[in-house]
Amino acid sequence: MNNKLYVVGIGPGAYEDMTIRAVQAVEKAELIVGYGVYAELVRPYFPEKEYFTTPMRGETQRCRYALEQAAAGKSTAVICSGDAGVYGMAGLLYELRGENETPEIEVVSGLTAACSGAAVLGAPLTHDFAVISLSDLLTEWDTIEKRLDRAAEAGLSIVLYNPASKKRRDYLQRACEIILRHAEPERVCGVVRNIGRAGESRQIMTLAELRSYEADMFTTVFIGNPQTKCIGGKMITPRGYRDV
Amino acid sequence: MNNKLYVVGIGPGAYEDMTIRAVQAVEKAELIVGYGVYAELVRPYFPEKEYFTTPMRGETQRCRYALEQAAAGKSTAVICSGDAGVYGMAGLLYELRGENETPEIEVVSGLTAACSGAAVLGAPLTHDFAVISLSDLLTEWDTIEKRLDRAAEAGLSIVLYNPASKKRRDYLQRACEIILRHAEPERVCGVVRNIGRAGESRQIMTLAELRSYEADMFTTVFIGNPQTKCIGGKMITPRGYRDV
Repeated sequence: MNNKLYVVGIGPGAYEDMTIRAVQAVEKAELIVGYGVYAELVRPYFPEKEYFTTPMRGETQRCRYALEQAAAGKSTAVICSGDAGVYGMAGLLYELRGENETPEIEVVSGLTAACSGAAVLGAPLTHDFAVISLSDLLTEWDTIEKRLDRAAEAGLSIVLYNPASKKRRDYLQRACEIILRHAEPERVCGVVRNIGRAGESRQIMTLAELRSYEADMFTTVFIGNPQTKCIGGKMITPRGYRDV
Repeated sequence: MNNKLYVVGIGPGAYEDMTIRAVQAVEKAELIVGYGVYAELVRPYFPEKEYFTTPMRGETQRCRYALEQAAAGKSTAVICSGDAGVYGMAGLLYELRGENETPEIEVVSGLTAACSGAAVLGAPLTHDFAVISLSDLLTEWDTIEKRLDRAAEAGLSIVLYNPASKKRRDYLQRACEIILRHAEPERVCGVVRNIGRAGESRQIMTLAELRSYEADMFTTVFIGNPQTKCIGGKMITPRGYRDV
């Protein structure tokens, strides 16, 4: 009886962007648990599995179900888009399991949008960076604002997750205004939509232009650091090798 | 004639931690170019290839060679540990190629130590975080210090790359002292050594204990945010689901 619970980062969505370990973990599981949209991404690659899905905001419900099923002896994989640990379900599963030792949890990393999106734009994260979500569902806006301000002040490249949704149309604009306290309007920025999926698109622009860009929930946003350049149509943050 | 240059993140080192796309890219290449230590990690999986390696600080030399070989028609892969874009060679290759259109460069992402190390410790990066290298070979220490200070002030989780080397024995201690300006000595921290390789080890400790921890160049360091907890022996940063 294998009652291990795998928490698997599937990466941006394409089978080829999964790690071999992630594929093996999903193959070992009888039951796949996940957010509906992401479950549909992997279902074609693993059609023989049992699926349990919930809509957005059903995170606690589906994590409880996965823990129960794994504890009862069913090999189970909770799948997350991107990495299992970056805004993923690994933390919530450990919180819900508490001090219990069963089921055993194994976190299997995947490519988070900061890394997979950076590869599409060029190399915007070759130096220090911060990853910040603009969603204020679970975080006070004041906290988000302080993080944006300090990250920009420190000259970190910044990756924004969840830059907008139907109810948060102006959040990216507000974030850009905070960053503009410390960064020049010409700062090189980039956006990627639908990373690694059908309809993938990329665009490089200035911070001033980003301020009026209409992002959606499938967009990942990159703000360069003071050294970031556009070279041959790519967004590049130099590491600083002195003899380039 | 395929003269594409692949820049491939191989992840922490095990074959299973490579993405399928990374394996395919290395398989397509005739020539593998990389830092000696990492080339030796992948050579057992791809023994039939031609290898060109240079020691540390030979980055520019090996990137120039890879560009020349690819431009001359040899299918080439530059391999990087972790992700190709996070302190990897993707940026330098684009810089060296400049405004030329050949060779075509394709960046293939891999698991960076922030993600693969987090999975070993539990789930320390479930909320916003910063990735900062303590190496001052290419970055002024003042810049590093400012980034540590602002990231800690903003309550970001912090991942430290290159926390120490033979010449920089006290850098982790200095970093902890900066972070202690804003964080309590009991802040939950974790270290992982040799992620995904033989001899992998992990340890969870307080920030005060981390201050006197002896890191080496194979160590990745995680400093929690104000909400980070130790649950069942794992380092967990809650996202904030309200009904846990």
